[in-house]
Amino acid sequence: MAEYEDTFEKVMELAKRRGFVWPSSEIYGSVAGFIDYGPLGAMLKRRIENIWRHFYVVQEGYYEIECPTVGIEPIYVASGHVGGFSDKMFQCPNCREYLRADHAAEALGIPHAGTMSKEELKEVLKGKECPACGKKMGDVEVFDFNLMFTTSIGPGGQRKGYLRPETAQGMFVDFGRLLRFYRDHLPFGAVQIGKSYRNEISPRQGMIRLREFTQAEAEIFVHPNEKDHPQFSRYANYAMPLCGIAQQEKDAPAIVKTMREAVDEGIIANEYVAYYVAMTHDILTTVGFNPDKIRFRQHMPDERAHYATDCWDAEAFSDRFGWVEIVGIADRTNYDLKAHSRVSGEKNTVFVQYSEPKKVHHKAIIPNFGKMGPVFRGKAKAVAEAMTTAEPAEDGIHLKLDGEEILVSPEMYTVKDEMVDVFGEDVMPHVIEPSYGIDRICYMVLEHAYAEDNADGEKRTVMRFKPGVAPIQVAVLPLMARDGLDTLAKKIVEELQDEGIQAEYDDAGAIGRRYRRQDEVGTPYCITVDYDSLENMTVTLRERDSMKQVRGRYEDFVNVIPRLIKGKVEFSENML
Amino acid sequence: MAEYEDTFEKVMELAKRRGFVWPSSEIYGSVAGFIDYGPLGAMLKRRIENIWRHFYVVQEGYYEIECPTVGIEPIYVASGHVGGFSDKMFQCPNCREYLRADHAAEALGIPHAGTMSKEELKEVLKGKECPACGKKMGDVEVFDFNLMFTTSIGPGGQRKGYLRPETAQGMFVDFGRLLRFYRDHLPFGAVQIGKSYRNEISPRQGMIRLREFTQAEAEIFVHPNEKDHPQFSRYANYAMPLCGIAQQEKDAPAIVKTMREAVDEGIIANEYVAYYVAMTHDILTTVGFNPDKIRFRQHMPDERAHYATDCWDAEAFSDRFGWVEIVGIADRTNYDLKAHSRVSGEKNTVFVQYSEPKKVHHKAIIPNFGKMGPVFRGKAKAVAEAMTTAEPAEDGIHLKLDGEEILVSPEMYTVKDEMVDVFGEDVMPHVIEPSYGIDRICYMVLEHAYAEDNADGEKRTVMRFKPGVAPIQVAVLPLMARDGLDTLAKKIVEELQDEGIQAEYDDAGAIGRRYRRQDEVGTPYCITVDYDSLENMTVTLRERDSMKQVRGRYEDFVNVIPRLIKGKVEFSENML
Repeated sequence: MAEYEDTFEKVMELAKRRGFVWPSSEIYGSVAGFIDYGPLGAMLKRRIENIWRHFYVVQEGYYEIECPTVGIEPIYVASGHVGGFSDKMFQCPNCREYLRADHAAEALGIPHAGTMSKEELKEVLKGKECPACGKKMGDVEVFDFNLMFTTSIGPGGQRKGYLRPETAQGMFVDFGRLLRFYRDHLPFGAVQIGKSYRNEISPRQGMIRLREFTQAEAEIFVHPNEKDHPQFSRYANYAMPLCGIAQQEKDAPAIVKTMREAVDEGIIANEYVAYYVAMTHDILTTVGFNPDKIRFRQHMPDERAHYATDCWDAEAFSDRFGWVEIVGIADRTNYDLKAHSRVSGEKNTVFVQYSEPKKVHHKAIIPNFGKMGPVFRGKAKAVAEAMTTAEPAEDGIHLKLDGEEILVSPEMYTVKDEMVDVFGEDVMPHVIEPSYGIDRICYMVLEHAYAEDNADGEKRTVMRFKPGVAPIQVAVLPLMARDGLDTLAKKIVEELQDEGIQAEYDDAGAIGRRYRRQDEVGTPYCITVDYDSLENMTVTLRERDSMKQVRGRYEDFVNVIPRLIKGKVEFSENML
Repeated sequence: MAEYEDTFEKVMELAKRRGFVWPSSEIYGSVAGFIDYGPLGAMLKRRIENIWRHFYVVQEGYYEIECPTVGIEPIYVASGHVGGFSDKMFQCPNCREYLRADHAAEALGIPHAGTMSKEELKEVLKGKECPACGKKMGDVEVFDFNLMFTTSIGPGGQRKGYLRPETAQGMFVDFGRLLRFYRDHLPFGAVQIGKSYRNEISPRQGMIRLREFTQAEAEIFVHPNEKDHPQFSRYANYAMPLCGIAQQEKDAPAIVKTMREAVDEGIIANEYVAYYVAMTHDILTTVGFNPDKIRFRQHMPDERAHYATDCWDAEAFSDRFGWVEIVGIADRTNYDLKAHSRVSGEKNTVFVQYSEPKKVHHKAIIPNFGKMGPVFRGKAKAVAEAMTTAEPAEDGIHLKLDGEEILVSPEMYTVKDEMVDVFGEDVMPHVIEPSYGIDRICYMVLEHAYAEDNADGEKRTVMRFKPGVAPIQVAVLPLMARDGLDTLAKKIVEELQDEGIQAEYDDAGAIGRRYRRQDEVGTPYCITVDYDSLENMTVTLRERDSMKQVRGRYEDFVNVIPRLIKGKVEFSENML
């Protein structure tokens, strides 16, 4: 076996060879930033997405929607992506390579390159060596490169289209429809799992930085003054290490807090954000992240979007890439709904009834038509209408009607102060957004699952996937491919498939070699059919990690396996 | 209630109002050819996709892969899409509208417009009225419009990219990797479910003709001489109406045949095609198509791609659109693998071992170095190597080596005729391709499920979805939202969710109105919690279509409902 530099190389070699992840369009030389999920990778990814759905759709009750990946311009004008979704780039005058200016500056050891302006970057890059070709560069021009892929919809370049840079905008654009679906009540949420696109300048980090990637995003619409999560008790006592702003400022280690403490002590802004911080930890460990390699880091005030009141990243540790952002959880206030309201003219508000009507002062302006008529003639009615919403000054009411300035003198109306009942108010909801990078999750699941140990006196490579995400759930192995062992094994495969279990039949090679093959793709259970099986219908069930075997009737295993995979039963001698 | 013209309008009104399907980016005026799946529509679509997966991935064992939607140019040069994936278009000289030339000609009553050349279309459209503005057009220019969306990958327009027009190419491009995954044995298959894109000129048919749509495609790679499906017995006796070439030529009605008969009588080309014709019928009825509104129509020789040996469309009947193509099942021979081999240089073949080695004549050319050395000196070895694959002529062997013409005279070699063992041969597989339009399936499921009848003396609208595709599977309705009825109802919802059931709690309004609300979105079962429930934990289960109710312990219902939904148990008095 070849020697590999680090876990990343080992994992990717296995991933390619066994059909998890392939370079995309490899026979045509590939192109950076695109990958193919092979048979086992696509299965792993789908299982991870379905676990995510179990939390957000089934448990939280936030329905999934599906919007197109191609969007029209006003959406991304409103969202700010047309104006501001760009990276700073320069072209090396020698090798003509395009490079991200901040990454190049960082590679040259310049601190805080990420927050520098174009002018500052131009200054620090001047005269330096190009990170691509190594030659001195002299002056370089740093400019903005918009990261959205563009296309054109319809013939004759009729309409500009963008490949969405995030799935989130679909939920904002559909806010009104969603509100009606949820019968005009807050809070409610909607989610989307799908492709998003960012035309990265020079992506070089495998599955970590893709030009086409899968996101799972939830947008939860809440009353701005009601940020207590109704189910908070579920995670109130859930504790995990937090790197808050204070810890980062002091360069102190993460502190372990329960969500209740984190909210009460002001570390996390509100229950909603804390709830999804905890749920994210729950999800990441459920799909198989190593809990020792997860941390939650709060955005520093200068790092956070100006409109967000709080933002936390779930980060996971990779041997190759260090701490990588996997999930972002933010309180985005009403920024998005307001932006779309401004561009589309939609109100994007919810009428929220008061628990009881409020009595409020109301200044009513009652026109005196007897006095107005002679002065304004045909216009009197229009003037009277315009007056109702005006604010009277000392010398009367100043109006502008069809471009004409009009003064209505005080004797032409009376002002009456009334008490009226107000039943509620229009409220623009705030948005809590947990946003997950599915490809990064897939990569981390692969890296954290990768292990080498010893089995039967030889080295084995084993992917220690959680049974719930393993692509192949059970392998059924007849000791020999004859004498009816094969027939019985195939029958067991069919019965397992009928229970919705991904079962694979394999009769090729020595039994030990077949175990190794299954270990390497992380199959949690193997059923072995031997000559005794034909006598009494018993088989052995072998667990991948402990390599322990239990013997029992095959029907009992068909019964218990779905519960083993769901984690409702533990593998043991007496599980049957 | 407003009056609607046809089922299409009724269905779409309900679909919009209840959250199945929405016009995409409606607040910005929408754009033709894009739709949003709302909460219930996305759920319906996902269930349909999962049923498809059950057939193709679990039952057939064809693994799913996931390739990017953005592809580089050589893929689509090889596939023929860059050269030939276009519609004939013209622009009205008066209103400047772009129109499909064949559709415009058809609208003007011109027969066979679909098979006309650009010149013929130009001729027949000359002087006619524009279907868009109604004015006389004079001369129009008919030109090809490529239907692929284009984009550009990386900064500086580095690389041209296309949004894939079909998912199929991913499986062809990954053929070599897939072959290794399946351990170099035929037959094997791979599938993909995902977005595809066609920049239609002026799409006007709702979910039937979209610019961004979801496909589910299977590519099954088989030995060219072995087109008997190994599991054919599964569908051998499956019978359905077939409109073969002969029936269409005679304008005769469809004939009902079993798949065994259809293959034996030469109506369907081979078992593989017949197997997937039958399985498609099975899938479409499983997801809820009305069997009386499905037919299978064979492509006429002039309609079929030149390389395909047989092609069948599954068509479904719509009140609005007539017979609509839903699925295509084709034997594409080795067209695609050959095309990619030509452009990429990959072999795209499988080494197939003979059952026993074949003895074959082999002409070996043995160089005589003693004679060649003095003539060719340092080149002698290279010449000898080149000779082994050459064909000797009367005057010797003519070679071209590094541009130099060389004649090796007959005394410099001997030709030996040997018998050698050949163990197998390189075979380029044929491809059987079933290709499904998921959005069209979703639309037909909506249209075929739509019904109006009477319930409790009033008219009701009911979506008669199969329980397996209904978005909401169970609604739990407390008679009153108090006295603990609500608590028990919520508990039942949670227990059902824990079984993976999509259960909804609803306590708003009279019970009859709540039933109507669930009927309208096709919820197959409602559980009602009343005051007796608090005494003895019994509830009633109501079936949507028969409106019959059965009373029983709620735990028993939680148990039986998953089996009812999978169709393993029938709703009846004694199902518990």
